[in-house]
Amino acid sequence: MTDKVLDDISHRRYNPLNGSWLLVSPHRTKRPWQGQQEAPALNKLPEYDPQCYLCPGNKRAQGDSNPQYKNTFAFVNDYSAVKEEQQEYHPEKNSNGEDDIASLLLQAQPAIGRCYVLTFSAKHDTTLADMSASEIVPVIETWTRIYASHLSSSHPLQAAAQRALSEIPPNPDGEVEPPKKELQLRYMQIFENKGAAMGCSNPHPHCQIWTTSTLPEEPGKELVQMTKYHREHKGRHLLEDYVKVEMAKNERVVWQNDAFLVVCPWWAVWPFEVLVIAKRHVRALVELTPEERLQFAEAVQEVTRRYDNLFETNFPYSSGIHQAPLDCTEEEAEMSWFHMHFYPPLLRSATVRKFLVGYELMAEPQRDITPEQAAARLRDCGGKLYRKSLQ
Amino acid sequence: MTDKVLDDISHRRYNPLNGSWLLVSPHRTKRPWQGQQEAPALNKLPEYDPQCYLCPGNKRAQGDSNPQYKNTFAFVNDYSAVKEEQQEYHPEKNSNGEDDIASLLLQAQPAIGRCYVLTFSAKHDTTLADMSASEIVPVIETWTRIYASHLSSSHPLQAAAQRALSEIPPNPDGEVEPPKKELQLRYMQIFENKGAAMGCSNPHPHCQIWTTSTLPEEPGKELVQMTKYHREHKGRHLLEDYVKVEMAKNERVVWQNDAFLVVCPWWAVWPFEVLVIAKRHVRALVELTPEERLQFAEAVQEVTRRYDNLFETNFPYSSGIHQAPLDCTEEEAEMSWFHMHFYPPLLRSATVRKFLVGYELMAEPQRDITPEQAAARLRDCGGKLYRKSLQ
Ligand SMILES: O=P(O)(O)O[C@H]1O[C@H](CO)[C@@H](O)[C@H](O)[C@H]1O
Ligand SMILES: O=P(O)(O)O[C@H]1O[C@H](CO)[C@@H](O)[C@H](O)[C@H]1O
Repeated sequence: MTDKVLDDISHRRYNPLNGSWLLVSPHRTKRPWQGQQEAPALNKLPEYDPQCYLCPGNKRAQGDSNPQYKNTFAFVNDYSAVKEEQQEYHPEKNSNGEDDIASLLLQAQPAIGRCYVLTFSAKHDTTLADMSASEIVPVIETWTRIYASHLSSSHPLQAAAQRALSEIPPNPDGEVEPPKKELQLRYMQIFENKGAAMGCSNPHPHCQIWTTSTLPEEPGKELVQMTKYHREHKGRHLLEDYVKVEMAKNERVVWQNDAFLVVCPWWAVWPFEVLVIAKRHVRALVELTPEERLQFAEAVQEVTRRYDNLFETNFPYSSGIHQAPLDCTEEEAEMSWFHMHFYPPLLRSATVRKFLVGYELMAEPQRDITPEQAAARLRDCGGKLYRKSLQ
Repeated sequence: MTDKVLDDISHRRYNPLNGSWLLVSPHRTKRPWQGQQEAPALNKLPEYDPQCYLCPGNKRAQGDSNPQYKNTFAFVNDYSAVKEEQQEYHPEKNSNGEDDIASLLLQAQPAIGRCYVLTFSAKHDTTLADMSASEIVPVIETWTRIYASHLSSSHPLQAAAQRALSEIPPNPDGEVEPPKKELQLRYMQIFENKGAAMGCSNPHPHCQIWTTSTLPEEPGKELVQMTKYHREHKGRHLLEDYVKVEMAKNERVVWQNDAFLVVCPWWAVWPFEVLVIAKRHVRALVELTPEERLQFAEAVQEVTRRYDNLFETNFPYSSGIHQAPLDCTEEEAEMSWFHMHFYPPLLRSATVRKFLVGYELMAEPQRDITPEQAAARLRDCGGKLYRKSLQ
């Protein structure tokens, strides 16, 4: 059992997955709040919105039209953060002393890639929390096909990718083409920003998929930490051990099925942060069996429904999947362990959020309620989606 | 000159001060924005607000009353994130295998300390941008006295601290007492959250000062990076060299005086992020001369006034000072280089902010306009505070 003392005292916790510490101040939730309140999400949206650039059949910003898709629909982001083609960049190098310092302190590297938008449903007014696990399966299948089609040809998971592609029928509403062969991308970040508080500009349920020629910081740090742990601990995996510890302690577990564990991690920064971890060694989406895809859909459904039930609101969050890079060595694939992060800002109610600002940005992340308290609250709010009982 | 290509292409830049990369996508500001808009700060506040717990003479949340202070006033935060006294915590250690994994993956350490609130002015309706440099000097003097009085007795900067304490008269409205001798704190983080968008719950101009028994992540990372640079580059300092490079290039400089350089750093994450750097090797507040304190006040005034002028609004930001730890070795003091960060969220206008969400949290920070473009805009909006011209 977690030392009960930690419920009352300020302390730091260590995040072994990214190698950094955070500050926990459990008594702080008692302070009054006179700051910004979020506008509660009213959620009275139409099932089809003629102005929405994600609804079936509608025109998008740059003139393309969406097909009359049924489940999911993916397309190249009209305002991608990275592009496949751009001017070349070769940093100037000079041999005089002054400029050497400059090239040391002003380092840049070009970044190319492709960004996609993927809708979860044709319905403008739905969310993952409203969808059933079997309705979420097509989303996971689309993620899997997109990931598989972007893997390098010599990727250690190619066989699994081919199996997955043969198992999952292509989307009848069209599929995204991977970039041309010469452009092998390094990493695919699947993420969702949900709710205005998390910078989402369109309520139509969707995620984004950014693929880049470089390995981004966060999955890069995790890979380093997981590799280090594996070397130092007799070939055991960090998240394998972590799943074992959390299942034995049973204090931060929110929900589980055979294939996935849902926990408020020991090192959670966001108030109701959740980590969905594969129980067996799954390196990437393509290694999930059909049954595991359904179980993953169940886990996503449980997290998002509980979030909405917690404060009876359309709960904002950012979520993202970490898995093996698109192009990687045998060792990097081996060290990868499939998991999904959920970072939600709400803290006390549907309108009072936690701000990660001054101290958090300048010094270190700080949270108020403990992850154990958060897990207990999320465990207790399963059951029917609150909106459905209201209808 | 910066390669002009970087104005147009997506690229990554390296932050040598904290050792991580970020993604820059200059073309992205062109996308339309349909998301959350910030409420413009109306700034029609009274000079004295009887409800404000920071105004002179008023009662605070836990019953204490503020004195009729004239300039600044500091007190222990009624809802401190860390406290001086709390129950002891000794993590349980077990020798059986299962528990060893647990103590490895569930690491915690107690955190004690003291948190202060410091008002910048007796006037409820002012901000640093409204104050003159000489009105800001008392703020810097108070920071200096508080820092000096919390230094360890054997601190390498003790002599400078004693000189500063003798130069700066004590605040006639009272001073904070350092914690008792047995409790030597390790670090003091001075920071300001300004504006509702940055989680500030009271517009009365104030900052916070959190002192802790541990060295927080961010200043810790910077110290490691600065020390490494010093070792690898013939005893030169990272920020010393950086000041030289920026002064020579003159592309990201916003403003400067003899003692301080104000730049949008090469590696800025926030749209109009600014770094104020001491030009000579100042390790901490206590090493500033009276003339340099005035010059630092000028720099803070220039940054905050330009911010407000940029979109003619009460510009939100979080800012924070990094300097030598309160308790440190000779080497750690030597490696420290006084600087101040400003992280403002606004991007396109007084109401459209940049969200650091999904990709930024899951993968790596991403920015839209380049630091060079940001610096050019900030250079161009000096002059009188826009509100004053409107009166
Ligand atoms: O202490 P305050 O102003 O109530 O709180 C504000 O600053 C703190 C330190 O950055 C944050 O932890 C809080 O989330 C924020 O709302
Ligand atoms: O791409 P969107 O949804 O327009 O933009 C949103 O997500 C991006 C990726 O996390 C962020 O960079 C933007 O700040 C945010 O508003």
